[in-house]
Amino acid sequence: MRKRKVCVVVASRANYGRVKSLLQAIRDRPDLELQLIVGASALLYRFGNVIEVIRKDGFEPNATVYLVIEGENPTTMAKSTGLAIVELATIFENLKPDVVLTVADRYETMATAIASSYMNIPLAHTQGGDLTGSIDERVRHAISKLANLHFPATHKSRELLIKMGESPHAIWVTGCPSIDVISCIDLSLDSVMQKYGGTGAPLDWNRPYLLVLQHPVTTEFGDGLRQIEETIQAIHALKMQTVWLWPNVDAGSDDIAKGIRLYREHQKPDFVHFYRNFSVEDYARILNNTVCIVGNSSSGLREGAYFGTPCVNIGSRQDGRERGNNVMDVDHNANQIGAAICKQMSHGRYPQNTLFGDGTSGKKIAEILATAPLSIHKRLHF
Amino acid sequence: MRKRKVCVVVASRANYGRVKSLLQAIRDRPDLELQLIVGASALLYRFGNVIEVIRKDGFEPNATVYLVIEGENPTTMAKSTGLAIVELATIFENLKPDVVLTVADRYETMATAIASSYMNIPLAHTQGGDLTGSIDERVRHAISKLANLHFPATHKSRELLIKMGESPHAIWVTGCPSIDVISCIDLSLDSVMQKYGGTGAPLDWNRPYLLVLQHPVTTEFGDGLRQIEETIQAIHALKMQTVWLWPNVDAGSDDIAKGIRLYREHQKPDFVHFYRNFSVEDYARILNNTVCIVGNSSSGLREGAYFGTPCVNIGSRQDGRERGNNVMDVDHNANQIGAAICKQMSHGRYPQNTLFGDGTSGKKIAEILATAPLSIHKRLHF
Amino acid sequence: MRKRKVCVVVASRANYGRVKSLLQAIRDRPDLELQLIVGASALLYRFGNVIEVIRKDGFEPNATVYLVIEGENPTTMAKSTGLAIVELATIFENLKPDVVLTVADRYETMATAIASSYMNIPLAHTQGGDLTGSIDERVRHAISKLANLHFPATHKSRELLIKMGESPHAIWVTGCPSIDVISCIDLSLDSVMQKYGGTGAPLDWNRPYLLVLQHPVTTEFGDGLRQIEETIQAIHALKMQTVWLWPNVDAGSDDIAKGIRLYREHQKPDFVHFYRNFSVEDYARILNNTVCIVGNSSSGLREGAYFGTPCVNIGSRQDGRERGNNVMDVDHNANQIGAAICKQMSHGRYPQNTLFGDGTSGKKIAEILATAPLSIHKRLHF
Amino acid sequence: MRKRKVCVVVASRANYGRVKSLLQAIRDRPDLELQLIVGASALLYRFGNVIEVIRKDGFEPNATVYLVIEGENPTTMAKSTGLAIVELATIFENLKPDVVLTVADRYETMATAIASSYMNIPLAHTQGGDLTGSIDERVRHAISKLANLHFPATHKSRELLIKMGESPHAIWVTGCPSIDVISCIDLSLDSVMQKYGGTGAPLDWNRPYLLVLQHPVTTEFGDGLRQIEETIQAIHALKMQTVWLWPNVDAGSDDIAKGIRLYREHQKPDFVHFYRNFSVEDYARILNNTVCIVGNSSSGLREGAYFGTPCVNIGSRQDGRERGNNVMDVDHNANQIGAAICKQMSHGRYPQNTLFGDGTSGKKIAEILATAPLSIHKRLHF
Repeated sequence: MRKRKVCVVVASRANYGRVKSLLQAIRDRPDLELQLIVGASALLYRFGNVIEVIRKDGFEPNATVYLVIEGENPTTMAKSTGLAIVELATIFENLKPDVVLTVADRYETMATAIASSYMNIPLAHTQGGDLTGSIDERVRHAISKLANLHFPATHKSRELLIKMGESPHAIWVTGCPSIDVISCIDLSLDSVMQKYGGTGAPLDWNRPYLLVLQHPVTTEFGDGLRQIEETIQAIHALKMQTVWLWPNVDAGSDDIAKGIRLYREHQKPDFVHFYRNFSVEDYARILNNTVCIVGNSSSGLREGAYFGTPCVNIGSRQDGRERGNNVMDVDHNANQIGAAICKQMSHGRYPQNTLFGDGTSGKKIAEILATAPLSIHKRLHF
Repeated sequence: MRKRKVCVVVASRANYGRVKSLLQAIRDRPDLELQLIVGASALLYRFGNVIEVIRKDGFEPNATVYLVIEGENPTTMAKSTGLAIVELATIFENLKPDVVLTVADRYETMATAIASSYMNIPLAHTQGGDLTGSIDERVRHAISKLANLHFPATHKSRELLIKMGESPHAIWVTGCPSIDVISCIDLSLDSVMQKYGGTGAPLDWNRPYLLVLQHPVTTEFGDGLRQIEETIQAIHALKMQTVWLWPNVDAGSDDIAKGIRLYREHQKPDFVHFYRNFSVEDYARILNNTVCIVGNSSSGLREGAYFGTPCVNIGSRQDGRERGNNVMDVDHNANQIGAAICKQMSHGRYPQNTLFGDGTSGKKIAEILATAPLSIHKRLHF
Repeated sequence: MRKRKVCVVVASRANYGRVKSLLQAIRDRPDLELQLIVGASALLYRFGNVIEVIRKDGFEPNATVYLVIEGENPTTMAKSTGLAIVELATIFENLKPDVVLTVADRYETMATAIASSYMNIPLAHTQGGDLTGSIDERVRHAISKLANLHFPATHKSRELLIKMGESPHAIWVTGCPSIDVISCIDLSLDSVMQKYGGTGAPLDWNRPYLLVLQHPVTTEFGDGLRQIEETIQAIHALKMQTVWLWPNVDAGSDDIAKGIRLYREHQKPDFVHFYRNFSVEDYARILNNTVCIVGNSSSGLREGAYFGTPCVNIGSRQDGRERGNNVMDVDHNANQIGAAICKQMSHGRYPQNTLFGDGTSGKKIAEILATAPLSIHKRLHF
Repeated sequence: MRKRKVCVVVASRANYGRVKSLLQAIRDRPDLELQLIVGASALLYRFGNVIEVIRKDGFEPNATVYLVIEGENPTTMAKSTGLAIVELATIFENLKPDVVLTVADRYETMATAIASSYMNIPLAHTQGGDLTGSIDERVRHAISKLANLHFPATHKSRELLIKMGESPHAIWVTGCPSIDVISCIDLSLDSVMQKYGGTGAPLDWNRPYLLVLQHPVTTEFGDGLRQIEETIQAIHALKMQTVWLWPNVDAGSDDIAKGIRLYREHQKPDFVHFYRNFSVEDYARILNNTVCIVGNSSSGLREGAYFGTPCVNIGSRQDGRERGNNVMDVDHNANQIGAAICKQMSHGRYPQNTLFGDGTSGKKIAEILATAPLSIHKRLHF
């Protein structure tokens, strides 16, 4: 029997977390062949050298490819997308996959979708149908319009895909593979405690800590510095020990980074510990054990729901995304942020919610990729 | 008063025909400034040097840009899209338009949409909501998901956009500017008769003639040679004088071109006249006066409806597109094609149908571009 | 023992002819591993689908890559160079060659040289030190400045490399592998006679025929149409049966092609047979048996010397290149061209001259690639 | 009279310093029109936002263009070169310069040279004929082979260009415009003292200070961390107040940056002040007043000669470059470095040396660009 060749493009640390269990499931099936492309920020030191994590996990990429045009602004985001299409097309031409899988809504996701669509390679897409803010949402829906197989995380997302005209027969609610990763590991902090250096004051993992992760909102480019300063003010007022992660590489991340740098240099807060990156597993441990996650990362809503981690979600970046009752939404306003953190700390942990997956998504998706009919033809379904 | 800068990307002869009256309308308004980018096949001799036509019409481009990676197959189509994004982003960065307008559904259209979306420039799109076959349809809907202002040609297309979740407040049914061009010119063949050389036998424009225009269907890449041979067989059997246009530059056009070349070399048909290109106006004249247009060009359905030109539409390329009663649909089958042509010739001309526009689309669109609120924020409207 | 990985980039039919015996020699050595990249015009139907010839010869490329940005003018030549660098860098990154070999002086050659130089991969270069006209000469010397191992064809070229400051220890006069190919085949026309279709009148290979091959001169861009018209006039006056090859894809080839097309359409010469491409071997047979080669192809000087084929060399394209006494140089002037052809026909064949190689170049180069020290460090040697 | 259009590409802070006085001289001539393109690291915050300095100096670029593919390794250096060629070709196509000027030997310089050469635009080149280490030297000589007008800084460089076969008639010894900038400003530190923040301990500009600037050596990629650690050890031992500049963006700069970061975090040296960038003028002031410049920047040799600044030059990066007697060369060895710094401090300032320019280079070059015959044809001159 000829194996189906499934090509997956991993382009960032977030990407990898959302596809790792699927990569394992593909590799483990005798009827599938994994073709792994690693590129963009997943290759960069500045973003935590994810490629090394991938190799340590036992995956050797079929190709690596540098794709990020430096600048971290709207222009370079567009240009990086274009460069990614040029390069992925050559790689697809040489790997000749039977199906390409692309994750969520980043610019590399769009590039993957366009390259495979024009090349008549069936396109599978995870996390379609989600509602969020920013350019990501427009991009996500555009990718759904190109995709041939949809693997939304939730039933609500499936409904939305159908509403937009996607065929119900091409949609499978599988949950998100990111939940798989966190469902089968030891979630205690023991292993984390000694490992991470980071910059700033030493952390006592046995005491309560906050987790902060705030990304730029690309459609609000130019406003990032003001936004991060509100968060900084709220955190600084609390003077509680804090794990702070650097933002991803979208347009505007320079502003966020600048705000953080200025804070660090001028205020020298000895209770805040800055990190570039964690492994997927360690991030889960830290998220599971924090008293509250603060910022605009989707992990607060998604993995947070599964763990029952209290979450303070700031601004518009997650607008429209489904959420469990572990989430409190606030504006970019130091007072609101501070008050919400306090409320969440007093509430404590929420019950587990499998809204975004129950730990078997990777296997479900691999099964469908192995057995579903693959076609590039699609029609609106109204 | 500051003029709004409207940037329009023209990438092919078809593009230009569908936007020419709009370019004039933008230029004529005191509250708009036209920024014209001409690229891709519009610069190439092989596709009729459309740039010269544009300059003769009085438009001097702000930038020209070579974008077509040679190969005319799915891989190069993807790569050309990527290259176009890279280059358009740099040009947008320097022109700083207030709004970008993109036409229909070609790969340059997608490139324009992606570059402007990531660069936070409001995107206007014509011909959204159309239903057709091939990759074009997926691309067109994906672009609608990125677009901020929609200018569909028909009310049915508007309905479809709304169904897919686009806000009714962002949709204006304007008709298609391609109808404008043909609504205000002398449609007699007098001016055409002496002008065109082409290859093959001389044509007597005073006698009835067929018009053939058959493009590759990108999602049926590899089947083009067989498809064109059926058409060739049907036309060859009729032995009627025929105007035959070379196909556009999509993936697969090599196959179509090869079929035509083989036919010409082996059968040496002295009743068929081959042409690379006509001006938009002359094409309209020829379409208006032909006894039947044969092939899979959208012009048979669109401009054909306005003229009432009998049309034999072959294969899947226009599947789902609205049409008037001037159109007969047939498969890639020489017998069906031949029979349909005969039927259409015996029927003769149909009454005018303004389904796709009444001749005022360019002005309507320019008016909206000048006055509608411009924003990059959008929400699904369900 | 670890094999040295030798990466060769083949980008056109001319390229392939100049490297084919070397590819065989590399493949045949137990201490070398061949990494073959095929791209640019070698993939295009319009230029004879060289990739198919390569595969028939038993070479399966490690990667294929589309590189030609359409336009065939100075701008697209520059852009294709840039695109080639981007793509080759990614391919080199994944193939990790120990040494890269690049051939002669085309834009893909320059792209290969730049990608490998910046990537700290030792660069081997054939045909350095030749003197010719046009941009090729500047490019060739620039590549020599980047190259670490030089394989010039002649002693005079070696002298020039040393004069320019290249170290004598890094230069090996090996002759050109293109001579290898033609030195070991049956040179009779028997196998050619039935094979080729081409366009135009049927040819009687048993009777004397001319061979015409005229490329654009890129530094004289814009003058190509006039240049080819002089040649056409001379050939047309002779009314002798003629094998005419289409030009390569450099800037300006559209002009040459246009001139040929116009000639064919208007004069319909029944004694001229046009061809897109021959296999390397068949081209050698045709060159060996022609009464005279006319145009500006280097094959008239190089392979022509080995065969003793009379050659009329037109214009500046080969200025400065070494030549045997089989060559007569003329201007772009129909009278001069015609007179020189007559003189050459009356002289007849010249004795063999091994100036450009004796048939063992491929093996010599492979031996050096296997055994010479490889380093990226170099110093001017004065 | 039609003005000659002179296009200059500025791609980094070093670039700008070496061309600023020429930009002024071009702008001031009635017979020249300046076309300024600013791109690559000159647009990036991480490298000091040089574009803002350029605008403050009164130059408004005709085009800005993002060119740097992130990664700072040999692969991305090659890819950035390719991307630069693609983009510059489009910009040249639209600006249509009469001559392009390119500076020194960076990858953007090579990209500029290749784009203009293939586009048949005469190419002027500054700093040709210099001898240095690393890939820069090979690139510089390759550019000389492409260039039509040479503006070397020194007579020795002129001799070398002639030796390599460049025509003496195409070479003008003009000195380097970087000397112009520093020859006409107030060199006292007064204006510097309050301006710069940087990271680390406050500096007392009235007391003696060291200046450290160490770039990666691209041909020694992988060795950067070890190299910088030797320098760090030497500086740390001296415990003298020090101005330390971050390295440029070549392949390997991540390693250097990492070394510096680790040093800063672990040793927390309160006598070292880290800076991202100075204006050209302020850098000159700091160089003029330091007791010793340490590292491998060419400024120690070039501007250092003019000022008579004591210089300790480490490693191979400047190998072969001309130097005055203000320079002591040492290996990457902490002891050697420390000893040399002490020796230089005890020697004190050297007399002025105009080896690299006397302050009139910009005007001289502008005069030649305005009056010399421009041609794309060149021949080796032996």
